Amino acid sequence: MELTEIELVRGIRKVLSGYAPGVVVGVGDDAAVVDPRPHPAVLTTDMLVEGVHFEIGVTSAHDLGHKAVTVNVSDVAAMGGSPRFGLACLAVSEKVEASWVMELYGGMRQAANDYGMTIVGGDTSRAEQTVLAVTVIGEVAAGRAVTRAGARPGDVLVVTGSLGGSAGGLRVARAQHGKQSEVLSSEWGRALVALHERPLARVGEGQTLAAAGATAMLDLSDGLALDLARLCQESGAGARVRLEAIPLTEGLEELRGLMDVEPLDLALHGGEDYELLAALPKEAVEPAREAMRERFRTPLTEIGEIVAGAGVVAVGDDGSEDPLEPKGWDHFA
Amino acid sequence: MELTEIELVRGIRKVLSGYAPGVVVGVGDDAAVVDPRPHPAVLTTDMLVEGVHFEIGVTSAHDLGHKAVTVNVSDVAAMGGSPRFGLACLAVSEKVEASWVMELYGGMRQAANDYGMTIVGGDTSRAEQTVLAVTVIGEVAAGRAVTRAGARPGDVLVVTGSLGGSAGGLRVARAQHGKQSEVLSSEWGRALVALHERPLARVGEGQTLAAAGATAMLDLSDGLALDLARLCQESGAGARVRLEAIPLTEGLEELRGLMDVEPLDLALHGGEDYELLAALPKEAVEPAREAMRERFRTPLTEIGEIVAGAGVVAVGDDGSEDPLEPKGWDHFA
Repeated sequence: MELTEIELVRGIRKVLSGYAPGVVVGVGDDAAVVDPRPHPAVLTTDMLVEGVHFEIGVTSAHDLGHKAVTVNVSDVAAMGGSPRFGLACLAVSEKVEASWVMELYGGMRQAANDYGMTIVGGDTSRAEQTVLAVTVIGEVAAGRAVTRAGARPGDVLVVTGSLGGSAGGLRVARAQHGKQSEVLSSEWGRALVALHERPLARVGEGQTLAAAGATAMLDLSDGLALDLARLCQESGAGARVRLEAIPLTEGLEELRGLMDVEPLDLALHGGEDYELLAALPKEAVEPAREAMRERFRTPLTEIGEIVAGAGVVAVGDDGSEDPLEPKGWDHFA
Repeated sequence: MELTEIELVRGIRKVLSGYAPGVVVGVGDDAAVVDPRPHPAVLTTDMLVEGVHFEIGVTSAHDLGHKAVTVNVSDVAAMGGSPRFGLACLAVSEKVEASWVMELYGGMRQAANDYGMTIVGGDTSRAEQTVLAVTVIGEVAAGRAVTRAGARPGDVLVVTGSLGGSAGGLRVARAQHGKQSEVLSSEWGRALVALHERPLARVGEGQTLAAAGATAMLDLSDGLALDLARLCQESGAGARVRLEAIPLTEGLEELRGLMDVEPLDLALHGGEDYELLAALPKEAVEPAREAMRERFRTPLTEIGEIVAGAGVVAVGDDGSEDPLEPKGWDHFA
């Protein structure tokens, strides 16, 4: 890439320009300044690393930018909050073109629009490997933030949407890249790929679950098995999950017919679904499900319950009980 | 490094634990939650990339962590604000040891203590190259944020402290690394290295300049020549700088005697001093200088003035006038 930092920043400022409510000083100064709000602030940051989280040439720059914002918004949603502002750090390798960088920022801009937030600043650098670190600042109603730590024995475990779709989409995308695209250019195949490349954060759903009285909540970024183990550990409790109750994404059955994949494995250990997992008092489940269907048409599924003790037990169709290993997507593996 | 992400996060949480005013939910959940404040928020992020901004084995992990926070706090200071919270993304290469990561977070923790702020969250990943991206969230009194854009012809240009020390310290550190350490283990040599490896952000000084009526301000991260050109461009004005007035860091004269370096060049084009450059109405200079000396013992030096037009003119000792080229530290060079 032949751009200087000054030219690059000029291009980025153009992509990010426009009306921005609440922004006193936007992109281009030492720091951004935004109006105060009466609510507690929610702060989160996530990094996407080339070769670990994405491959240039496989994921489009636009989708990558969108996803980098989405994974952070998903963390805000998992607290019951809503996003307001974003900051983006980008280190780019030599092989990246200026047009790729502009498309990346275009994707971030699009995501910011989708979630009603504004990108207000960032930093750029050269690197050997492309790294994108996005920070999102949001807000949450006072006393309403839902942590991972409050689940109590007897609470019902629920998930939004369906699981395994992102991991399935990744398999399809890799197969396409490997020139086996013909059999996989089906509608369900494309839908799975879209779930992987353009996930959506469940902002309204998170607020609905928080308002319904969720005692603990997190977003499923590393797979149900690992993320549920985290929720249990933070809450000092255990859980039982009914495997047959786990909602599997449409298309995974078709994928099983073509590839050596087990839909339930993808749901348990695949990761990157960005659905919400929450613990709810039993009496709160029906009102939450009703509110979510009405407002967002998003299904809410009971998959098990919180129990005293520690660890997660998987209950099979036949009533068998086995410990569910907390293995999933480990970026250090 | 043989750690899993879970073990690493456990270690980091321990380093960052403790009393944290204003923090509702700290490190370890999907996102942090902090109390609302009546002031506008200041948001900034900066990235440090191995091989571009630092070398492992040259800079200590503790100093690197401290500096990663400092460069962000310096941006908040340059708006006239004060820091409150920080988030840190770290991608680590295989060659990095777990102890190095803990020292890095120890340095960030120390910097947070120094600046009266709290690290509330972050993210970690594996990478080929170590990258550290820190975000700082601060606050500024309503209507008091000082941008780069408000300088007017007739305003006096002032800088805090002295310039060139960080670039001088980098030369000393490199020479030490090249086994020429004997001649450079002097007190002034060590002082220069400390300026490079452990710079301090001018938080109180920035607030003093903002309160005194600064019309434009930025922190000197890329050298006076380039940073002043940015201030002029954003303000739609030009500037005249008296070269003999630029305060040079002590020790640079001694360094000139030993190496092929020109102290003035280091001050103009070296970068990373993290001193503040501000434009002040003429009548505000003396009160600002007095307040800064009293409160922080930091010198404030007049180096020139804002003029109508564009571009920066350097005025020599002999009255000569030459355009000052906006060249400095470009991370894409």
